[in-house]
Amino acid sequence: MRLPVIQYTGTEGVLDLGWGHPDPTLLPVEAWAASTSEAVPAAGWTALTYGYAAGPGQLLEWLTVHIGAIDGRAPEPAELFVTAGASQGLELVSSVLTRPGDVVLVDSPTYHLALRILADRGVELRAAPTDEQGIDPAATARLVGDLRAEGRRVPMLYAVATFNNPSGASMPMPRRRELIRALEGVTIVEDDTYRELAYEGPVPASLWSLASAGVVRLGSFSKTVAPGLRLGYLTADAAFVRRLASRGYVDSGGCVNHTSAMVLAHFATTGRYEAHVSVLRDAYRRRRDTLVTALRSAAPGVEFAVPGGGWFLWLRVPDAASLARRALERGVGLSTGERFHVGGGGGHHLRASFSMYSPADLEEAAHRFAQALPPPP
Amino acid sequence: MRLPVIQYTGTEGVLDLGWGHPDPTLLPVEAWAASTSEAVPAAGWTALTYGYAAGPGQLLEWLTVHIGAIDGRAPEPAELFVTAGASQGLELVSSVLTRPGDVVLVDSPTYHLALRILADRGVELRAAPTDEQGIDPAATARLVGDLRAEGRRVPMLYAVATFNNPSGASMPMPRRRELIRALEGVTIVEDDTYRELAYEGPVPASLWSLASAGVVRLGSFSKTVAPGLRLGYLTADAAFVRRLASRGYVDSGGCVNHTSAMVLAHFATTGRYEAHVSVLRDAYRRRRDTLVTALRSAAPGVEFAVPGGGWFLWLRVPDAASLARRALERGVGLSTGERFHVGGGGGHHLRASFSMYSPADLEEAAHRFAQALPPPP
Repeated sequence: MRLPVIQYTGTEGVLDLGWGHPDPTLLPVEAWAASTSEAVPAAGWTALTYGYAAGPGQLLEWLTVHIGAIDGRAPEPAELFVTAGASQGLELVSSVLTRPGDVVLVDSPTYHLALRILADRGVELRAAPTDEQGIDPAATARLVGDLRAEGRRVPMLYAVATFNNPSGASMPMPRRRELIRALEGVTIVEDDTYRELAYEGPVPASLWSLASAGVVRLGSFSKTVAPGLRLGYLTADAAFVRRLASRGYVDSGGCVNHTSAMVLAHFATTGRYEAHVSVLRDAYRRRRDTLVTALRSAAPGVEFAVPGGGWFLWLRVPDAASLARRALERGVGLSTGERFHVGGGGGHHLRASFSMYSPADLEEAAHRFAQALPPPP
Repeated sequence: MRLPVIQYTGTEGVLDLGWGHPDPTLLPVEAWAASTSEAVPAAGWTALTYGYAAGPGQLLEWLTVHIGAIDGRAPEPAELFVTAGASQGLELVSSVLTRPGDVVLVDSPTYHLALRILADRGVELRAAPTDEQGIDPAATARLVGDLRAEGRRVPMLYAVATFNNPSGASMPMPRRRELIRALEGVTIVEDDTYRELAYEGPVPASLWSLASAGVVRLGSFSKTVAPGLRLGYLTADAAFVRRLASRGYVDSGGCVNHTSAMVLAHFATTGRYEAHVSVLRDAYRRRRDTLVTALRSAAPGVEFAVPGGGWFLWLRVPDAASLARRALERGVGLSTGERFHVGGGGGHHLRASFSMYSPADLEEAAHRFAQALPPPP
């Protein structure tokens, strides 16, 4: 009997750029083990008993300072809640905000597995109208008005506004302010997973940091430390955090991932977090640059924007589905664009992740992909 | 700024038997730190990346053998799913089984915070009819029939059948078989948190082990290892496990607590689990015996059954609410019985937990409690 240990085990001979997983060599194995063997004995039994619902104070204190450094403003401790990863955060937040039959708006394209999490709520998913800057605030406000006029509840909008998965695009600052103003009464759930994987200069302030209320921002340690930890955080107004902390299962079990949160606080306050993220930024920047250069050289007819952060290139192609099939036959995996859309779209895009492979593998993948392209007409 | 770290911080001068928390001195601080510093480097990056949805193979393999040793039968690996604690397990299972407006049945008395988790689902909670052996199968089947005749959905029943929290009672074996037979079409969610904290001889086989399908059994490492880990497991039929594994947020994040599950597998397969649970059994048995003896001596008029396992004495008293108030004034905390009931009841019971304090503190608590009793008429 040999059971699986991890989620993705790969296919022999395939360089799978379809998966947004970290490069195994970039996971902080020794640093995490060392942090645990220091932090747990130092904290003693407080590391192992039921944790404070919103997360252990050490982690909340560090997050207030850290978020102040990477975003538009620092949260108060009462505006923070430690989650078991951004996906669990979205599950929890959408449980609180929605009821079956509600309409939930999403950006397009957007993180495809978020669509599945939201669908589990029994809600109807609708794409918010977009233009080249992302979600169109005025058109979206009109859609909300129309839906409400039909008697529908529209409690939330989900968006990956910064280094979007899959497109890599970030909503410009003026558009962020317009969106917040336009959507009063709709809670914006902002998936802010990629903020710290930024490869050039400043990152736009989060929607959360620009609004006084009505935005819940989901952060994660999956990309910056390790996804197996199932650890993240969110920022929201203090009243919303209190609603989360008073959920039955949080009240019963305390912090949803207390021991790991205690270790993360130690990993962070000993400087390991900053050092590790700095290594990641350099490594993923190099991977991005390698794949960009290799694709421009091998497949000059394929258009894409160079993302300022995150893990993905969003390739514009004539026929995504058939090209993905041909690419797979040549040993390179890609995600087809329609998975990232609600209600159609994406037929001319492929998502290529540069996170899981070495620069040499990425060059080989670009080469195989180019061979799968149809000959120029 | 000094933020809370843990859930329960206590009240100066109060011996609080109202909380079902572990004794801090019985948490395996050094053994957990050592297990992490061994397991994470040994497993390398597989300990830190996205885990297999149902849990890492090492832990599933150990659980098949371990559950075979402590329960009526061993599960197949496909019948196992690793959770982020029994409370998260109940949140997840009830999300899959129920819709707002459904009726969910519960045993009486029952774990009070489970009632809050279920209430978050927007369901109506109803007490299943009980007699001195626990849930009455025939009467419950009639209630289900009546509710369905009214057009209500009754998808699940929640019960703590073994070492019940709060009563300490276990449903007798024949009653278990009758209940399974009587409730076809209603999924029994069996909270089996206390099975391994058994202080005398064999423990009745779980409802899950007696049924071919239709029972989900929630297990936990909160009582046997540490609650801060937020780690547990459930056993169910393989089709139900597949439904859980295909939830959006499990599909997105993989195993809901992968790294801790990897460490737990190492903690278990190196023999630390068995050794630790053996220490716990002796320690909690002694605490139970101390509180039983002290109460019989100091408060002979207060009746209770001696539980064969778990953490609680269920004290029969004339007026629970006023006695709890007087006891608190004398420095001993107790939980009033009405919190463990749906739709009334419990006014003549107090729950006293012997888990959090030393034998000496438990003797002092019994003494204070006796002083709070009204004088005999």
